[in-house]
Amino acid sequence: MFLRDYWYAAAWSEDLKDQPIAYTLLNEPVVVYRRGDGRPAALEDRCAHRRAPLSKGRVVGENLVCGYHGVAYDCKGTGVHVPGQAQVPPGLRVRGYPTVERHGCIWLWMGDQEKADESKIPDLHWADSPGWGAKGRLHMRAHYQLLNDNLCDLSHLGYVHASNVGNTALAEHGQVETQTEGNVVRTSRWTLDRPAPNTYVGAGGFKKNIDRWQISEFLPPSFFLLNFGATEAGPGRAGPTHPDRFAFQVCQWSTPETEGSTHWFWAIAHDFGQNRDLSMALPFYETMYKVVQEDFSIIEAQQRTIDRDPNAPITKIEADNGVMEARRVGVRLLNEEGRGRDSAARKLARH
Amino acid sequence: MFLRDYWYAAAWSEDLKDQPIAYTLLNEPVVVYRRGDGRPAALEDRCAHRRAPLSKGRVVGENLVCGYHGVAYDCKGTGVHVPGQAQVPPGLRVRGYPTVERHGCIWLWMGDQEKADESKIPDLHWADSPGWGAKGRLHMRAHYQLLNDNLCDLSHLGYVHASNVGNTALAEHGQVETQTEGNVVRTSRWTLDRPAPNTYVGAGGFKKNIDRWQISEFLPPSFFLLNFGATEAGPGRAGPTHPDRFAFQVCQWSTPETEGSTHWFWAIAHDFGQNRDLSMALPFYETMYKVVQEDFSIIEAQQRTIDRDPNAPITKIEADNGVMEARRVGVRLLNEEGRGRDSAARKLARH
Amino acid sequence: MFLRDYWYAAAWSEDLKDQPIAYTLLNEPVVVYRRGDGRPAALEDRCAHRRAPLSKGRVVGENLVCGYHGVAYDCKGTGVHVPGQAQVPPGLRVRGYPTVERHGCIWLWMGDQEKADESKIPDLHWADSPGWGAKGRLHMRAHYQLLNDNLCDLSHLGYVHASNVGNTALAEHGQVETQTEGNVVRTSRWTLDRPAPNTYVGAGGFKKNIDRWQISEFLPPSFFLLNFGATEAGPGRAGPTHPDRFAFQVCQWSTPETEGSTHWFWAIAHDFGQNRDLSMALPFYETMYKVVQEDFSIIEAQQRTIDRDPNAPITKIEADNGVMEARRVGVRLLNEEGRGRDSAARKLARH
Repeated sequence: MFLRDYWYAAAWSEDLKDQPIAYTLLNEPVVVYRRGDGRPAALEDRCAHRRAPLSKGRVVGENLVCGYHGVAYDCKGTGVHVPGQAQVPPGLRVRGYPTVERHGCIWLWMGDQEKADESKIPDLHWADSPGWGAKGRLHMRAHYQLLNDNLCDLSHLGYVHASNVGNTALAEHGQVETQTEGNVVRTSRWTLDRPAPNTYVGAGGFKKNIDRWQISEFLPPSFFLLNFGATEAGPGRAGPTHPDRFAFQVCQWSTPETEGSTHWFWAIAHDFGQNRDLSMALPFYETMYKVVQEDFSIIEAQQRTIDRDPNAPITKIEADNGVMEARRVGVRLLNEEGRGRDSAARKLARH
Repeated sequence: MFLRDYWYAAAWSEDLKDQPIAYTLLNEPVVVYRRGDGRPAALEDRCAHRRAPLSKGRVVGENLVCGYHGVAYDCKGTGVHVPGQAQVPPGLRVRGYPTVERHGCIWLWMGDQEKADESKIPDLHWADSPGWGAKGRLHMRAHYQLLNDNLCDLSHLGYVHASNVGNTALAEHGQVETQTEGNVVRTSRWTLDRPAPNTYVGAGGFKKNIDRWQISEFLPPSFFLLNFGATEAGPGRAGPTHPDRFAFQVCQWSTPETEGSTHWFWAIAHDFGQNRDLSMALPFYETMYKVVQEDFSIIEAQQRTIDRDPNAPITKIEADNGVMEARRVGVRLLNEEGRGRDSAARKLARH
Repeated sequence: MFLRDYWYAAAWSEDLKDQPIAYTLLNEPVVVYRRGDGRPAALEDRCAHRRAPLSKGRVVGENLVCGYHGVAYDCKGTGVHVPGQAQVPPGLRVRGYPTVERHGCIWLWMGDQEKADESKIPDLHWADSPGWGAKGRLHMRAHYQLLNDNLCDLSHLGYVHASNVGNTALAEHGQVETQTEGNVVRTSRWTLDRPAPNTYVGAGGFKKNIDRWQISEFLPPSFFLLNFGATEAGPGRAGPTHPDRFAFQVCQWSTPETEGSTHWFWAIAHDFGQNRDLSMALPFYETMYKVVQEDFSIIEAQQRTIDRDPNAPITKIEADNGVMEARRVGVRLLNEEGRGRDSAARKLARH
């Protein structure tokens, strides 16, 4: 069960060229393609004639033409031509998905089409700004909720990323606060006057103890704005605006493929402050690829263990507060969507 | 559910040498082998002793000897020796399949043994004639019915094979007729005075419009005789006997492995007419390997899409007429086989 | 369903170094590791916090620390530290397995912890004696019972190992006796005054007929002591103590991974007698690797055939006597374990 009335990312803009691409999004087979004029579109990836995947077809002008017997569909999914027939059979159509290209990403609306509202696309303006230094996409064999959990509890940096961006000080001495505003859950973790982990020594140049922040902002269903940084110990919680900060912005967002797999997108920009040497940027970004891979590896391993015995109990610890709060918001929104559908069904039933 | 009282191909003759080969045919494990004198035989591939596969055994004279504990079976599947025992335990037997080698192929009768009748082996005399130019075997992860469908509706050449033997004229301007005689369904498609596709330009040497025929003859459960060809526009439906025709004969037949996979055999011969340069035969046959691979690819993709949602609806179009007629014949024969079995069972029950 | 109140091998000692290793044993995920002082320990491989596998963690002194959020466990599975928390939440624990290193192997007790008794570890003193010449471990996709069956009926040497240690004389002319003492089933097979198989000619140097013995001693659930050997024909059943014997000792033991897969351990030592040239020992041991591989191959093939139709009937032959007797003992012990658990449950229910 997934939240549906949201925009979900299907592809980086530059990966969608002139060939249609098949994705599974929220358990549904989807073909994403560019029309003749370059505008993106997305349809159910299953011809209504004999169920060949439309992703094996070809774009002809405005239409996508099935690669098996030539049935053509417009960008809404309406069948517009059947070879050798004067008329298209009534009802020949596949599902179309509202599709928008923004911030270097192709976004699909997976829910009720009337509710598609472009203003709800997450603000990811950093991702196509010149300052962005690294980005990527992974296909992860794990439920997207496990990635959300990972990003709500950043104490894991002390263990998963112990060789680079983390050390145990984060988990042992972090001061953590969780705030919810509407659907946004912000978890802030402050670690004051503690030693710097390797990456902060190397890329940040810290030789003494640091004041460090990790601020994770979660927007359902799966979008995260993460702000990380540090100053030499002293400014405390004023670090994020301190001119000598070492800081960077990470965005992570994901699209469920199935209950057991996820399309995971991420991008990162530096915000290193004014007085810093930028020659360390490239090795820093290389570290970020490794960090993402470390998360990928532990989350897939966690999913495999869950799959072995989905009912094995879990024990809550204090670090889970942000995770629990974000899960509560998700469950509330799922219930609201469910009530909305029930209500729409009742309304239809009265007519 | 498969038609059983038919001959099914298991192997090309030249592929069955002195080692037994394991196949799954109609969901059953079968070992096919040559006896000491070279005659083929086929048994259930599961020793009646402790269920090791007999395909790991050895041929000793007339018998197949299990490779685990040495139990020996004759070519009917009767246990004839148990090592260290004077007598074979009663009931020690495995199923035997009537087996015939003909037309360069090993054929197995998969149904009631008393009904095995060699005269029902499809006439495939072309396949071991000198004129045959290319043949092959594929293992396809799709139900064999999807291959039947493919071969009953040759409009797909305009899309699946658009770069070689097909163009959209076939689908947009074909004149199609379907005739059923007994169990044979013949679908004829005529495309008159239309441009030639690439292969007909290259191998057939056509520079102007052509009159083209595609005649597909289906013999249940899965045997197809396909006659293809063209003349320069003019003779119309007299093309197949015109001396300046460019024509060829394709045979395709398949054996279900499981509900989701198929052994697919094909062979092709030219019938290029008397006045033609035969130097194009080899590149023409090379094209045929590509054509088969294109069908293979779209059919496997179609099966994957069907498997995702087996109940997704389909919409009939006019090109489906031959497909529907062949499916009707198949369903009728399945019902007849079922009634035959019920009747035999009732007869037994009365005794 | 497996026998649980037994010691099962998880690893050869030399394979367990300073990194934890994940195994599945009797369907349970287990992490095996060495504590700081080198002593082995084993826990359920699933953190009680959020179910990451502990095998991705790190050993810190006496404890295993989860690699995701840093929860630490002692060697009994009791949670002893949660980062950033003064107190460990009550009930934070995973299952611990009594673990012993003996005879070069790491043994885990998979049943009720109170019943763990080191004296029940099979006597495998040969396995870490200098005389041992070869040993190995295989991961086999088959139920461990099929390996037990293989080792209870050594007539299979005449077919599975026909090119090396076996010939048909073993199966056709063996004199076989099966004796059960308590839970131990001993199957002896004598083949007197018959030709020697290849390995006995090559490594044993026999040029004439031999008197040969194969003595298989089965200790549930899955431990085998196998004594093999021969003399030149003459001494008959006095061969095992004859000074000119060619003989060797094989141990085989296995641990079920799942119902369909098995961890298989084996070791072999020579007992070639006093007057023999030992230069053939190395090629002889090389043959033994091949012999194990031949068993592996036929057993996996047998399992695949069983999986296709688990209810296909089997037919008993005389060579199965030892197999049947060992299976009877196994079933009796399973029933006894089941009654023990029921009785313990009733006792608990009365309180």
